[in-house]
Amino acid sequence: MSIVYIIPLFGLIALLFTAIQSAWVSRQEAGNERMTEIAKHIAEGAMAFLKAEYKILTYFVIIAALLLGYMGYSHHNSDWTIALAFVIGAIFSATAGFIGMKIATKANVRTAHAARTSLAKALKVSFTGGSVMGMGVAGLAVLGLGGLFLILKSYFGAEANTAEMIKTIEVLTGFSLGAESIALFARVGGGIYTKAADVGADLVGKVEAGIPEDDPRNPATIADNVGDNVGDVAGMGADLFGSYVATVLATMVLGAETSSSNDNFGGLAPVLLPMFIAGIGIVLSIIGTFFVRIGENAGLNTSAVQRALNMGNWGSIILTAIVGYFAVNWILPETMTLRGHEFTRNGVFGAIIVGLVVGTLMSIITEYYTAMGKRPVQSIIRQSSTGHATNIIGGLAIGMESTLLPIIVLAAGIYGSFACAGLYGVAIAAAGMMATTAMQLAIDAFGPIADNAGGIAEMSELPKEVREKTDILDAVGNTTAATGKGFAIASAALTALALFAAYVGVVNSNHYRMDGINIYKADVLAGLFIGAMIPFIFSSLAIRAVGQAAMSMVEEVRRQFRTIPGIMEGTGKPEYDKCVAISTEASIKKMLLPGAIAITSPLIIGFVFGPEVLGGFLAGATVSGVLMGMFQNNAGGAWDNAKKSFEKGVEINGEVFYKKSDPHKASVTGDTVGDPFKDTSGPSMNILIKLMSIVSLVIAPTLAELHGNGAAMVKKERPVKVEQTAGVTTASTKATAMLR
Amino acid sequence: MSIVYIIPLFGLIALLFTAIQSAWVSRQEAGNERMTEIAKHIAEGAMAFLKAEYKILTYFVIIAALLLGYMGYSHHNSDWTIALAFVIGAIFSATAGFIGMKIATKANVRTAHAARTSLAKALKVSFTGGSVMGMGVAGLAVLGLGGLFLILKSYFGAEANTAEMIKTIEVLTGFSLGAESIALFARVGGGIYTKAADVGADLVGKVEAGIPEDDPRNPATIADNVGDNVGDVAGMGADLFGSYVATVLATMVLGAETSSSNDNFGGLAPVLLPMFIAGIGIVLSIIGTFFVRIGENAGLNTSAVQRALNMGNWGSIILTAIVGYFAVNWILPETMTLRGHEFTRNGVFGAIIVGLVVGTLMSIITEYYTAMGKRPVQSIIRQSSTGHATNIIGGLAIGMESTLLPIIVLAAGIYGSFACAGLYGVAIAAAGMMATTAMQLAIDAFGPIADNAGGIAEMSELPKEVREKTDILDAVGNTTAATGKGFAIASAALTALALFAAYVGVVNSNHYRMDGINIYKADVLAGLFIGAMIPFIFSSLAIRAVGQAAMSMVEEVRRQFRTIPGIMEGTGKPEYDKCVAISTEASIKKMLLPGAIAITSPLIIGFVFGPEVLGGFLAGATVSGVLMGMFQNNAGGAWDNAKKSFEKGVEINGEVFYKKSDPHKASVTGDTVGDPFKDTSGPSMNILIKLMSIVSLVIAPTLAELHGNGAAMVKKERPVKVEQTAGVTTASTKATAMLR
Repeated sequence: MSIVYIIPLFGLIALLFTAIQSAWVSRQEAGNERMTEIAKHIAEGAMAFLKAEYKILTYFVIIAALLLGYMGYSHHNSDWTIALAFVIGAIFSATAGFIGMKIATKANVRTAHAARTSLAKALKVSFTGGSVMGMGVAGLAVLGLGGLFLILKSYFGAEANTAEMIKTIEVLTGFSLGAESIALFARVGGGIYTKAADVGADLVGKVEAGIPEDDPRNPATIADNVGDNVGDVAGMGADLFGSYVATVLATMVLGAETSSSNDNFGGLAPVLLPMFIAGIGIVLSIIGTFFVRIGENAGLNTSAVQRALNMGNWGSIILTAIVGYFAVNWILPETMTLRGHEFTRNGVFGAIIVGLVVGTLMSIITEYYTAMGKRPVQSIIRQSSTGHATNIIGGLAIGMESTLLPIIVLAAGIYGSFACAGLYGVAIAAAGMMATTAMQLAIDAFGPIADNAGGIAEMSELPKEVREKTDILDAVGNTTAATGKGFAIASAALTALALFAAYVGVVNSNHYRMDGINIYKADVLAGLFIGAMIPFIFSSLAIRAVGQAAMSMVEEVRRQFRTIPGIMEGTGKPEYDKCVAISTEASIKKMLLPGAIAITSPLIIGFVFGPEVLGGFLAGATVSGVLMGMFQNNAGGAWDNAKKSFEKGVEINGEVFYKKSDPHKASVTGDTVGDPFKDTSGPSMNILIKLMSIVSLVIAPTLAELHGNGAAMVKKERPVKVEQTAGVTTASTKATAMLR
Repeated sequence: MSIVYIIPLFGLIALLFTAIQSAWVSRQEAGNERMTEIAKHIAEGAMAFLKAEYKILTYFVIIAALLLGYMGYSHHNSDWTIALAFVIGAIFSATAGFIGMKIATKANVRTAHAARTSLAKALKVSFTGGSVMGMGVAGLAVLGLGGLFLILKSYFGAEANTAEMIKTIEVLTGFSLGAESIALFARVGGGIYTKAADVGADLVGKVEAGIPEDDPRNPATIADNVGDNVGDVAGMGADLFGSYVATVLATMVLGAETSSSNDNFGGLAPVLLPMFIAGIGIVLSIIGTFFVRIGENAGLNTSAVQRALNMGNWGSIILTAIVGYFAVNWILPETMTLRGHEFTRNGVFGAIIVGLVVGTLMSIITEYYTAMGKRPVQSIIRQSSTGHATNIIGGLAIGMESTLLPIIVLAAGIYGSFACAGLYGVAIAAAGMMATTAMQLAIDAFGPIADNAGGIAEMSELPKEVREKTDILDAVGNTTAATGKGFAIASAALTALALFAAYVGVVNSNHYRMDGINIYKADVLAGLFIGAMIPFIFSSLAIRAVGQAAMSMVEEVRRQFRTIPGIMEGTGKPEYDKCVAISTEASIKKMLLPGAIAITSPLIIGFVFGPEVLGGFLAGATVSGVLMGMFQNNAGGAWDNAKKSFEKGVEINGEVFYKKSDPHKASVTGDTVGDPFKDTSGPSMNILIKLMSIVSLVIAPTLAELHGNGAAMVKKERPVKVEQTAGVTTASTKATAMLR
């Protein structure tokens, strides 16, 4: 049983690595006075956002904790400590965000300075910054989940297949809910922040005042750079932190239901496996980071950098596959049974491979649809030649088309992982895919650091060759941002599915019997419709929030241009903090309504219409959320790169067009439409579908009691594993048959 | 039993009315030589499209009929005559389209001429034209369905609750499939046609050559006017013909499964009711048409016209509700049972009311989201002031938001109609809503006739006051087009749901036992995902088809401008027919791939993965199709009216903007993006979801046999109504419980 103690250790290793790397970054030189001053503005802006966000979060967390605590207290399958777990989850997620923001706002200026020396050095600084974020997130997640499990297990005295174990894991769902709540604020609020600042700065700076991007005279420029950190670092980090925790947790829920005859871990093997894989994944990601390097003499092009990142990524994926094989064989018994479905440990390994393949394919497909030079982006470029409208039509068509392959991959993944190891397979596939989260995040967070470094180089008027190097990193960062989004939505989808699988298990208790979620029932079908509509209304609100916040930003910048003397000549100092405050306030205010929809809609559906209708609702929301997420992310990414393609000139029907040409102007329209798509509403879908699933999972025991349909006559604590009695078809074998 | 003979009579009454009204329209004067010449071009273009369409349809129908005939022949629950029913359905639907096009291309020029006299006269001509279409569709549908039922019933010697009755109704599904196949060609092909011509004509005419809309020098202008007929008359007609037939049929399928103890119609009462209501609805719609009139002295504004149409619409809806009450009480027994669920005839009447309310609310909500002067359109106008991108963002946000209320209405409708009368209630609600189809179509078809009349007045250089009157009719037509789209998508959604309900009933046979569609099974969930993706890829293809076809049109117009001497001076004659041919060819070629997806995807899913996965697939496709349909229809409609608002001038932040201003240009971009949304991909969703459901229903018996799970041990022909045996929970009571 010592494995239970080992798991939190993996988390500590990650945090140790985080501290070492973070210290290394801090030791690097930050450059001249101008650079440090700008960096200070950005860092302060970022912290101002976090402070404002954490303030409102505190209220939210306290109220939610009280409600949760009461619910846990009054329900025999849960405990008041779920409130504590929730608070810890929220704090851990917020801490991960804090670490990421802190390091990103340090690494940006140091990357700019390193770029004065060499591309290799600049890559090293920016990627190390990214890996601090990655390891911080993974470390805190594993430490939190593993540590809490250890504590709760001994607090409740929980052993395998007991009511205490069910309670332990139910309380752990509070941790996951806490993490995902922070993700809501970070991803949705952050998404609104970054695009309000970006669109606002562009509209009034580039268009009205005619000054270039990242010009220090533009009061919104700092807010814009802060936005990169808020949205792409903290938002993405919290998103993946939430997915990571939720997948492991969902697998544990199903693992606790799984039984076998010869388990070397006291019946807990299937519960421990996902945590162990997450832990070992950290070590493998650390090893992977050492692959990410280029020679001092590497040419000034993106391919070497891209290859280095790919090496790190592929390295950790392949290592996870190999080590996963041994881990599964060491921990799991030969065969196990979950809800009457028997599966083998080889099957479980197969499911992990399915998860890794799904994650990889999703990233590759996303890259194809958003990469420069490929057919989708080329088609948008061609359609820019006939104007704004055809550019938009082209992008929308590409976005819709881009759902085809990922959905087939996802559906095949569900099918394949279930074929390998039943519902446990679906969940462990997600956990396997998330095992390399630390590496994925390191690669993701590297992008905005490089982007910021470029901005600082520009604002500090560093020599042109510095900007060239940061541009190379930035270009690679755009690709990794796209693949990262593919990974994030895939992880969200698999997480939601794993939670969905766990949900039915938790609902089935001694109060409630649910054989499945039958959309042939009118009320469940109505739930499916309502659920599928939520992502549309959520997207609508998120998109509109960006528009309104950008307008406030425009007005503030106009006011400063009008009232601050000498601002355009560079002698008057713009009030950056005012713009930062506007973005901060708008983002937090505007995310309340969509956030409230995400949290309260499953509560209403569940309490009023019961667990099965809620199941239909969740399925509808997940399916539609995944589709809307892909549609919006990919359309936005493709528009962005179509616009960027004009910088080097593009050939349309034999004619070459550059920036400022009419087709370029049309492409700018597409990019502006795509901004909220790809950075606000699209990524918000991840949070939406996960949050609704985790809320449902948390309230599942209460719902089962409230809508009890008298299954209490079955005497076992978990009435799922009743054997077939000859001749009489019992309810449970029926359920078994349905879950074949 | 004489009621069986009465039903086809209703169809004959409608056709008689059609003939009388049609003759009246033909007798009206067609105006001067120029007008008749232009009208001739349009009529010829429309017929050229129909000819090309029917040619390819012939191949399709023959091949599909052979396959169907073989399937019917080799399956004991079906019969080879299903091929005949299919062919008849196709011919009837095509005939309805032909009648509609014929009358629309006659009524347009006569409306223009009538507008020289008075608005009242112009309304009378155009609405009479529309009602010919409406009555033609309804009449052919009721005659075809009622007549075939009569013939098949005596051919098979079918009585209630016999295998022969099941066979009779199974063969009738062929009629519905035939009708819906034509709808695919008419709606999707027609949608591509109309927008290719419209966008192509605008791009090269208005933008490049600087000549106004409907200018006779533009070679694409006839194609544009033909498009209005092809898309809005024939497309809409075929769409509603399909919905009408399918809802009645689905209710009959469920009715055949329903049993009662004292049925005055030999056990057939629930089968006959939907046909009878459809028939009586025709009579009530005829009565309704008499309400549609305005005084000769009515002022030149839209309100009188709108009020007249509303009178007709409300009149027939209220009459349907009243007569429905008596019909239900006359035909149905006091209580009935379907799959263990007992319901009363009062419940059935309640469900009909639910259907009428749902249809009405959907129309009202759609109108709100697309009407000038209301909040949604106003918000898009405001966002046009900051450019193309914000206009697009505004429209997309409105489109997404517009799904909220209709989905809640729809979900409540499902819930409510089920609560009233179980699954039979869901189906009869749809049938009740469709009872006023004749009136709905009359109002719908009136719009494009008025639109065309305006075009003819413009091209014939009639006095300004003529154009003023046609403009009033056209403006009302835009509103009715929006509400018509709301009605059409609501009807498609309810139709798909009714078919979905029928599908499970048909699958459950002596070969296959399906207790429901459990999305908790991994394969069914995968099916749900794949299904939900189909509307996205279908929309993508439809949108892209418009873009490509419009490009061909642009090239042809450019060629004519270049090579025909004197074309711009009005001395050279443009080759209208070449443009018509391009639109025709492109529309038919480009609809093959999306059409093939719609037809083959349920076949593949069903045959490879079985009936339950196909059920999940259908649910996913329906949910996502309804959402994408509303999103695209309403975004497109709102953009259109935002643009139109500039014609009279709009106030944004205290400043008034007119046509040619920058905000107006931004609004034109939105309108162009919205064109394929609202007239091609959006309405195509109706066909997509219905066609996939009807294909599934047709193959259901074959699937049940192919994927047989040994339910054959149950000895009855339809093993659904087995009673509970004390102490032992049998499969069928289980199913009963699930369908509570």
